[in-house]
Amino acid sequence: MTAPGFIVRPLPHAELRKDPLVDRWVIISTERAGRPIETPTAKMPSQIEYCPFCEGREAETPDELFALRDPLTPIDGPGWRVRVVPNRYPAVRMREVPTMTHANCQPGIGSHEVFVECPHHERNIAYFSIDGIAEVLESYQQRLAFWRADGRLRYGQLFKNVGPSAGASLEHSHAQLIVLPLVPRDVQAELDAVHRHHHETGRCLLCDLMQQERRSERFILESSAFTVFAPFASRFSFESWIFPNRHHVHFDEMTSEERLDFAEVLRTMLRRLDLLGQPDFNLVLHTAPFDHVDERDFHWHMEILPRMTQAAGIEWGTGFAINPIPPEQAAEFFRHSS
Amino acid sequence: MTAPGFIVRPLPHAELRKDPLVDRWVIISTERAGRPIETPTAKMPSQIEYCPFCEGREAETPDELFALRDPLTPIDGPGWRVRVVPNRYPAVRMREVPTMTHANCQPGIGSHEVFVECPHHERNIAYFSIDGIAEVLESYQQRLAFWRADGRLRYGQLFKNVGPSAGASLEHSHAQLIVLPLVPRDVQAELDAVHRHHHETGRCLLCDLMQQERRSERFILESSAFTVFAPFASRFSFESWIFPNRHHVHFDEMTSEERLDFAEVLRTMLRRLDLLGQPDFNLVLHTAPFDHVDERDFHWHMEILPRMTQAAGIEWGTGFAINPIPPEQAAEFFRHSS
Repeated sequence: MTAPGFIVRPLPHAELRKDPLVDRWVIISTERAGRPIETPTAKMPSQIEYCPFCEGREAETPDELFALRDPLTPIDGPGWRVRVVPNRYPAVRMREVPTMTHANCQPGIGSHEVFVECPHHERNIAYFSIDGIAEVLESYQQRLAFWRADGRLRYGQLFKNVGPSAGASLEHSHAQLIVLPLVPRDVQAELDAVHRHHHETGRCLLCDLMQQERRSERFILESSAFTVFAPFASRFSFESWIFPNRHHVHFDEMTSEERLDFAEVLRTMLRRLDLLGQPDFNLVLHTAPFDHVDERDFHWHMEILPRMTQAAGIEWGTGFAINPIPPEQAAEFFRHSS
Repeated sequence: MTAPGFIVRPLPHAELRKDPLVDRWVIISTERAGRPIETPTAKMPSQIEYCPFCEGREAETPDELFALRDPLTPIDGPGWRVRVVPNRYPAVRMREVPTMTHANCQPGIGSHEVFVECPHHERNIAYFSIDGIAEVLESYQQRLAFWRADGRLRYGQLFKNVGPSAGASLEHSHAQLIVLPLVPRDVQAELDAVHRHHHETGRCLLCDLMQQERRSERFILESSAFTVFAPFASRFSFESWIFPNRHHVHFDEMTSEERLDFAEVLRTMLRRLDLLGQPDFNLVLHTAPFDHVDERDFHWHMEILPRMTQAAGIEWGTGFAINPIPPEQAAEFFRHSS
């Protein structure tokens, strides 16, 4: 499926578009929207009967690192609203490791944490209350601030997988934080581009980009504190990016007012996305490295990446994506649905 | 599933590994191999009854561009062994387009072709005869040589998707060629790295890499003309790369003897991979751009990318992959299975 109820208007020809931040080309080709057999989104059987994330099953996860919980409720017991635990199958962890001898190899120290975002069995954060989403965001901020203050690691990659096509193995709403001793490639490429632009123009590339996109056909919505648009070189059908209006380097410094605003914007976007047949999706946060000190040189943002088709060979071998939905049409859909 | 019958030996700690060609880090973390619920490979219902690629249904595809066929059989009729047709839903195509006005946008001119690799309904090229595979490879070479001689485009990206998790919508064995007016990002990054290394050392980086890997725990097998190893920073579980032993820039210049050798090596690798529960996979060819003239500065190779787990949020937002199977253990599996 691509998108029930959504009719793609064919472009007269395909376009090769380059991302303005990263050296990454995308093929926007509406002819492929007509392909008869898109890979279906695999649906998982409901996991409610054995879900380790539901309230009352706290013993089935590692001990909690952080929680927002009701007064006088015990750690690792019921009474929480958001709960953060170590990933039981961590990609990285903090511990003593031998010194490595190879320039291309580092010990995988770090932290891999899971945010259990609600006590009841709900799949999609889009259907939380605004306050519930704001508390989830606050938890993200708390853990990022914790690791920034810790000082031993360099980057906290926050992401969320919803549905099996997006890489989720559990359906209960959750997010993950992987904290690493290095800055991931795509974030570093953005940092480099922002730094270059600032050096050349004295301005923030991401502020400039947002201003430009607000006036474009790819604009979706704005609130007092945030702007949403479909990026020019969208790799995914119905991809969208949420930017804070004020120049703002670290996600963990968002104020409580901004957080409520962000919660509402995020919920609006995810509910509109859900109209397209409840596609699986990823959320990926791009924020500055912990040791980033120049307040002019980054601008955090969140990417919403729907997973309507499988990434095929071309993407993995080459860095190229093929997207059948022009972002201008995706933005039009998001502007007009509610 | 990760791999039936394969037991991962845990590493004492995770490792962050950097690809020697491209600035791309991978987390090798055996703890994640124990995750209880990996996303299952979706199985498609058999398409044999309505497969447009089977012999006798030539009218269901666009007119053929090229075929290896028996003497005196008619174009677009039965009697072929390999048949190349335009993709019915092309990402790009050759035609007159308006001049674009934007540095980050080019018209999507190019060619998008499909190789139908056998007349009967077979899913996996691993079960072809050696001669059958060699004819498929010859067809790849013919089309790449055609576009190199044409001179209007810059790069031919050849790839193969097998199974829905790898992006295939049809199960009949096929490959695709997308010919583009630009060089894809990952190939360009490799070209840059090879060029730098040659400038600094006078040697080919990929020749050096292959020699090093032949003596490593990641070595899998060698024939008279090819070497196979699991790459140091494998992004995928059981990933492997096939390199020609002689320094060799363009895939389309492979000789007929080398082609038979390559067919046998490829078949061996794909049959051993199939022992791991018939995983879906991609093949991706990295060859030199059409206009590449310096014979010292590239070395073609083919990547076999099994798709045993879904690419999750972390990969897409950051360029990071997480791989639960150390390539040294993957290589050991491939060396000992037969």
